Amino acid sequence: MNIKEMTRPECVALLKSTRLGRLACVRDNRPYVVPIHFAFGDNAIFSFSLPGKKVEWMRENPHVCLQVDDVGGDGWKSVVVDGLFEDLPRAPEVDNTIPAVDQQLPKSNHDREFAWSLLQKHANWWEPGALNLGGATPAISGSHLFYRIKIEAISGRQAFQ
Amino acid sequence: MNIKEMTRPECVALLKSTRLGRLACVRDNRPYVVPIHFAFGDNAIFSFSLPGKKVEWMRENPHVCLQVDDVGGDGWKSVVVDGLFEDLPRAPEVDNTIPAVDQQLPKSNHDREFAWSLLQKHANWWEPGALNLGGATPAISGSHLFYRIKIEAISGRQAFQ
Repeated sequence: MNIKEMTRPECVALLKSTRLGRLACVRDNRPYVVPIHFAFGDNAIFSFSLPGKKVEWMRENPHVCLQVDDVGGDGWKSVVVDGLFEDLPRAPEVDNTIPAVDQQLPKSNHDREFAWSLLQKHANWWEPGALNLGGATPAISGSHLFYRIKIEAISGRQAFQ
Repeated sequence: MNIKEMTRPECVALLKSTRLGRLACVRDNRPYVVPIHFAFGDNAIFSFSLPGKKVEWMRENPHVCLQVDDVGGDGWKSVVVDGLFEDLPRAPEVDNTIPAVDQQLPKSNHDREFAWSLLQKHANWWEPGALNLGGATPAISGSHLFYRIKIEAISGRQAFQ
C-alpha cells in the first residue's frame, strides 16, 4: 500500500462528488462528531440541521472539521477540511410569481438559495423530517437551520496499491 | 422518517459489528477528525496508528469522540462514543515456545494482546503499512502504536420509515 498527499484539485474533486461527511465540533476541549449531508461550492461547505447539540456547540465555537472519504477495495482517499461555521440568516421569502432573475435578493438570500439549490439535488437527506421537504422552497423548511462552513484549509491523503 | 434514541445494547451491537469509525480529537479548541479501524471490547475501543498528528493531539488532550454509523436505503443508525485516549504500553515479547496460558504476562501485555486479537480479525486495515503485518505477532509491528479509548459515554440515534 502506497500513500501520497492529495493535491487541492484532487481534494476538491472528492468534496464535489461526496455528500456524506463527518463533522466535528468542540466545547470545553471535548470533541463531538456527527454525520452530515453537505454540498461543496464557492470555497465553502453548505449544510443544514435541525436545532440541537451540534448547532449549539458550533455557535459557541465556530472552529469545525469536516472529514470525507472514499474507501474502495484497493485503496482509499480521505480529505479533511478545517473551517469556520457561519449561520445563513433567514431571508425574505422568494416571490414565486416573479422570475428569479428579476428579484432583488439580498446577499444572504443568495447564499441561502445557493445552499438550497445544491442540497436539493440530494436524494437522501440525513436529518429527520427532511424527507417531507421534497421540492419545496426554503421558506417552508421552517425548523431547519442552513449553515455554511467557510473553508480555511483542505488536506487529503490517498492510499493505492 | 421516524427517529428514536438507541438503547445501550443497540449501540453496543453496532460498535461490535462495525470496524470503520471516525475519531475526533482536539487541540487549542480546534477539532481534527480522521477515519480509523477499531475493535470494541471490554468497555473500550481498541485501535492502532502510525505516529502522526492524531496521536500527538490525543497525547496532549485525551478527550476523544468516536462516531460510527450504518446508513441503509430505508434508514440509518449513528452511535457516538465519548472517551479517553490511553496508550497501550509496549510489553515484553511473548515467548512463542511457551503456551500462552502458562506465561505470566503483565496486565499491559494482556491489554495489548487483547487489542491485537480483536484487530487481527480485520481483513482491511486502514493505516498504511498495516497490510504487511498479516498474521504476525504484535512484537513485529514496531512502528505502530496501540491505543485504547476508555468509554465514558455512549449514545445513539436510529431513523426508520
